[in-house]
Amino acid sequence: MAGLRVRSILVTGANRGIGLGLVQHLLELPEPPQWVFAGCRDPKGQRAQELQNLASKHPNLVIVPLEVADPDSIKAAAARVGEQLGGSGLNLLINNAGMLINNTLENETLENMTQVYTTNTIGPLLLGQAFLPLLKKAAQGSPGSGLSCSKAAIINISSIGGSIKEAYFWDLANNLSYRCSKAALNMLTKCQSLGYREHGILCVALHPGWVQTDMGSSAGRTPPLTVEASVQGMLKVLSCLSEKDTGTFLDWEGKVVPW
Amino acid sequence: MAGLRVRSILVTGANRGIGLGLVQHLLELPEPPQWVFAGCRDPKGQRAQELQNLASKHPNLVIVPLEVADPDSIKAAAARVGEQLGGSGLNLLINNAGMLINNTLENETLENMTQVYTTNTIGPLLLGQAFLPLLKKAAQGSPGSGLSCSKAAIINISSIGGSIKEAYFWDLANNLSYRCSKAALNMLTKCQSLGYREHGILCVALHPGWVQTDMGSSAGRTPPLTVEASVQGMLKVLSCLSEKDTGTFLDWEGKVVPW
Repeated sequence: MAGLRVRSILVTGANRGIGLGLVQHLLELPEPPQWVFAGCRDPKGQRAQELQNLASKHPNLVIVPLEVADPDSIKAAAARVGEQLGGSGLNLLINNAGMLINNTLENETLENMTQVYTTNTIGPLLLGQAFLPLLKKAAQGSPGSGLSCSKAAIINISSIGGSIKEAYFWDLANNLSYRCSKAALNMLTKCQSLGYREHGILCVALHPGWVQTDMGSSAGRTPPLTVEASVQGMLKVLSCLSEKDTGTFLDWEGKVVPW
Repeated sequence: MAGLRVRSILVTGANRGIGLGLVQHLLELPEPPQWVFAGCRDPKGQRAQELQNLASKHPNLVIVPLEVADPDSIKAAAARVGEQLGGSGLNLLINNAGMLINNTLENETLENMTQVYTTNTIGPLLLGQAFLPLLKKAAQGSPGSGLSCSKAAIINISSIGGSIKEAYFWDLANNLSYRCSKAALNMLTKCQSLGYREHGILCVALHPGWVQTDMGSSAGRTPPLTVEASVQGMLKVLSCLSEKDTGTFLDWEGKVVPW
């Protein structure tokens, strides 16, 4: 984990679960980032209390208002982050914000399908577009020709639930809107990797494992993985990513997950 | 092709392109279906002229008003088809209606992403739900324990553009909204195959090839495949599908397409 050295990073959906865990671990790195931007919907609200506590102790943590389903909010966040960074770029965008609605194949609705797709798939697309200038700037300002997270990267937090081949735990939870949105997010990741490679930006989809969060526990079973273990694993994976990994789908241990 | 024998079939998006080609060929089969239902948005409109001409010659062709992005329209179509079928079921639902918006990674919008997903992914989900009772009835009324198109099946017309592994012709056309919607449609197909197997319904995603239609020609190049060749190939594939194929992604020649 000592390997992950980034100057600036934005984590979306950072007020709880895996997002909060990522922010906590980043702040505790031996060489922490100069700036950790934590995107959350309501920075002053009750649900952002832990982020607020962290920010009071860590002056390099900046909480940014961000609703990933709202293009205007995304643009405002990009402007806010750009302002804070002055002339330098953003190394790492972690699209972690996501939602899950527990539904069966039979009672899934147009409204749920649309809502989940907007948050889980369209949001990461628009964030990639809005932060592209800052990511490009980071890549241009980094030495070397290869791709890496310390240079510039987009990490989309996907799920093995988005693996069409695996259809993981179908009988436990159909979650159709979620599965479809994550399969589409994997496609987005592949497309971003192809489109942004020329700009020096690495793009990877990550499965964080089945984690003890509100979302992970929503199927009524206790997930095997702590947030701690998932986040430590993912940060280690991030530190090792290189050119050959762009456009792939990996789990928290670095193993390839099938599409 | 002599092998495809279905009593009743619904093709969505049937007024032009591949949908119209499917309807034409079905009506010309040595043993044509008792009922061919052709779904289209505006059955009386100018763009349904060819369907109207066909219907005047083939009393077994029924044109059904159907807007696949509208849940109420889908329910009304299911009621209309059920009425026509009397007490019997629907053997084959071909989710062919689809749309493509030519866009780059950079200028894709929330509105386009939502519109294309609604038509290409949510529509087929809702159609599967609405026609499930009729498909179940067809399966129950057919002899034998295996799965087949002559018993009961949902065929989702997907695209190699939805193959995450292939990222087919990325440089020619990014078409992000389309690619994401088709990857999600492939996931839906897998989920439908798991959920509907117990009801005796086979579910397959089909890539029709790159076909000489309005959509196929939208990238500015002439596609290699005629509608005739694509449709003949697909109908042959349909006639051969069995239990082992449910939940797979095949092309018009029956070859497996990677997710």
